[in-house]
Amino acid sequence: MTVQNEFNRDLIDHSVSLAKTAAEFWGVSNTNTRSKLLQGFATSLEQNQDDLIELANTETGLGAQRLTAELLRTVYQLRGFATEVESGAPYRQVDDKAVEGLPPSGRPHLTRVQVPLGPVAMFSASNFPFAFSVLGGDTASALAAGCPVVVKAHTGHSELSRAVYRLAKRVISTHGLPEGVLTLIENTNRNENGYLVQHPDICAVAFTGSYQGGKALWKLANERTKPIPFFGELGSLNPLVVLPEALEREGETLARTLANSITMGAGQFCTKPGIVVVLDHPLTSRFIDQLAIEILPLKTHRMLTPGIRGSFETAVSVVANRAMTVFQPEADGLGPAPRLFKVNANQFMEDASLREEMFGPAAVIVTASNMSQVLGVLNAVEGTLTTTIWGAYHATADNEALVRTAENISGRVLFSGVPTGVAICHAQQHGGPWPASTTPQTTSVGYAAIERFLRPVALQDAPAWVVEARRGD
Amino acid sequence: MTVQNEFNRDLIDHSVSLAKTAAEFWGVSNTNTRSKLLQGFATSLEQNQDDLIELANTETGLGAQRLTAELLRTVYQLRGFATEVESGAPYRQVDDKAVEGLPPSGRPHLTRVQVPLGPVAMFSASNFPFAFSVLGGDTASALAAGCPVVVKAHTGHSELSRAVYRLAKRVISTHGLPEGVLTLIENTNRNENGYLVQHPDICAVAFTGSYQGGKALWKLANERTKPIPFFGELGSLNPLVVLPEALEREGETLARTLANSITMGAGQFCTKPGIVVVLDHPLTSRFIDQLAIEILPLKTHRMLTPGIRGSFETAVSVVANRAMTVFQPEADGLGPAPRLFKVNANQFMEDASLREEMFGPAAVIVTASNMSQVLGVLNAVEGTLTTTIWGAYHATADNEALVRTAENISGRVLFSGVPTGVAICHAQQHGGPWPASTTPQTTSVGYAAIERFLRPVALQDAPAWVVEARRGD
Repeated sequence: MTVQNEFNRDLIDHSVSLAKTAAEFWGVSNTNTRSKLLQGFATSLEQNQDDLIELANTETGLGAQRLTAELLRTVYQLRGFATEVESGAPYRQVDDKAVEGLPPSGRPHLTRVQVPLGPVAMFSASNFPFAFSVLGGDTASALAAGCPVVVKAHTGHSELSRAVYRLAKRVISTHGLPEGVLTLIENTNRNENGYLVQHPDICAVAFTGSYQGGKALWKLANERTKPIPFFGELGSLNPLVVLPEALEREGETLARTLANSITMGAGQFCTKPGIVVVLDHPLTSRFIDQLAIEILPLKTHRMLTPGIRGSFETAVSVVANRAMTVFQPEADGLGPAPRLFKVNANQFMEDASLREEMFGPAAVIVTASNMSQVLGVLNAVEGTLTTTIWGAYHATADNEALVRTAENISGRVLFSGVPTGVAICHAQQHGGPWPASTTPQTTSVGYAAIERFLRPVALQDAPAWVVEARRGD
Repeated sequence: MTVQNEFNRDLIDHSVSLAKTAAEFWGVSNTNTRSKLLQGFATSLEQNQDDLIELANTETGLGAQRLTAELLRTVYQLRGFATEVESGAPYRQVDDKAVEGLPPSGRPHLTRVQVPLGPVAMFSASNFPFAFSVLGGDTASALAAGCPVVVKAHTGHSELSRAVYRLAKRVISTHGLPEGVLTLIENTNRNENGYLVQHPDICAVAFTGSYQGGKALWKLANERTKPIPFFGELGSLNPLVVLPEALEREGETLARTLANSITMGAGQFCTKPGIVVVLDHPLTSRFIDQLAIEILPLKTHRMLTPGIRGSFETAVSVVANRAMTVFQPEADGLGPAPRLFKVNANQFMEDASLREEMFGPAAVIVTASNMSQVLGVLNAVEGTLTTTIWGAYHATADNEALVRTAENISGRVLFSGVPTGVAICHAQQHGGPWPASTTPQTTSVGYAAIERFLRPVALQDAPAWVVEARRGD
């Protein structure tokens, strides 16, 4: 094992060293060069779509339909970042002309520019073999910012990672770029992952994965001699509040929509609604019945890895010991049986173990007697990627308090639809207060994700040649 | 002592509780309310200028001239933040209309809004009794964002803090605002400061002070069950590179300018140039002589506290044991004698103890044989608020490498003048890679400082009443 470790550490050193060298070139490259590379990646994924999806399906079991959608999303995302790069918006300069006179009103000429952080270590996710992996959103946004990326492949889809990386490497070479712009590290153990995070030439970390794994690496990033930004997107409960007004309008449809959102992809989404908050109301018990009826026939596919399946069953058994089981179907085939539990608001607020994420097709229904309890339940959640509110149609005091509370704990607040599915656009915010994200003021999806890898620098009385060279065009 | 501690903890609980209550009101207040409060603070400082400056001078010994300038800067800053609030820019919404069709191009309606983090704990600095204290930049920017502030007064100017707080309290009351918008905590010890940082209702921390003190509190913020953003502005070396081209043009003037920057305010500025990097060149030894000649007659005033004076003498003696002393004047009066040391680039790069901040009127001259050594010296600094480059007039390869290296380690890069004195404007960036700042992507001076206390939230398919209520106007 020691030999293996040292071998991997050498490989990590080598990859980071390539990235460091590439940073000198890539960090000052123009928007055209960056955009073309991202577009090249997109085209390459598209051209090899069938082979990649087959490989991904063999490794992850997520199914061709979902994987096709995810690959197309990844292609769309790469092209979107290319367009964003071309627009120059991420490198926008803020210029304050000199003002004659004494301070505070008198001042020198200041230009605020954006500089890339340097080589980024990126930890791929198990559940998004395309969109949060080798050429996923973290890679695209770091490259757009001018930062080379050292990708840590997820062992759940090693073959696919290697195949995508081979394609990427070819594109990099075709474009005449240094190979260190993107490197791949595989089969590293926990210590080696820590070694990568603490490598002196790594300047930032992007991570999508479990709370335990992410928190451990975040701690290591903070324990460095020189701590670095750690953009970790960890677990999330994604409460969904169903108000009576919504049930009056479309209770049945909502039950079906929610059933699908809880079980799709075997519930392996960081945005899966894990908590369904309902108010005491004549329509509520009917809604719960409908939800159970809708979930019952839904088949799940096998989970991503045996480890994830094991963790799901453990998490579910903890909740099962404390909550009422709404139904208990038999597991059918390779996938886990979906599970639905029920507790009241006081139980949920008092018992922290009911607030552990069940990563898989399961949810806890929390019954509240009044709006004050609903707010208490949300406040107990503390930090989540999303909160969904169905039925807040009008500006009542209760609804206003509900939305403010949802905003306080979430990165995204939905008023219709389900949180699974995250649109790629400028207004997106995929993050949220701890534990949803280690850096709640940043997003890991959407074009604002680029900002994570840039740092503002004020140039004071800079000569024209300096300012012009930093415009990116 | 135990009684004292519990008494202070009760006071902390009380202040935070007031802040939490005030957050519900202040977090949703409109721009007019916020702007008026900041303006009210400015006017109140202005009207009580004479008394405040006398009090500040008694406590800090910084002198009436400097303190007047600092008070006026604080007034200007409060009004500047008021104008920024009125412009609505900090709460700017990003709107992405819904697009018909399937993802990834089809999407719901998304509006990215900014929400305040909640109550902020603010630790005042010793060296800026107005600008980084009760009504200083951290307070102004947090309030502008909609966050109530719990100020921890610095013991170096307790009476002044109390006096400013009394004025602030009166303004808050006149405006009919809840008192918890701004509260003051005094005479807390380390444990109590930690207690404040770890208080469950504190949502972010702003800190300006020493590396040791700041790092300790930053660790406590990270060790919370729910870690929170910690905006710490710690120590800084502020290297200043003097190229021969600058000496040819204006060597004598530059020596005078630099001598003043090193000694002004008894060197008690986080932006004081602590490292002067010079290249082997016929003009260089003359410049060093001139610098010594210019510094020699400069008188310093007493330092802020006996503790700061003690730390300065300790820091200086560490360097004195390792470096050549360029001159050794007698201490004259209450202030410390300015000190100037000299080492070569290799010594500086090899010996980390030469890279400890000397907070006071002292600097280390580092002689480099070539540009590669200059870059090595800057890279050894790692993180600093500022780097100054004198003489990079033309776009040579050496100058380009020098500026890029300076950007990589700094929050601000100056091409003329000295780093002491930080303009308040949109383009300012006061921060820098660790250890200059715990959050190098944020600034603690200038209008972008508001962003530290806001968090983006994406509203998905939000009803009009929700979006409109978040426009701030």
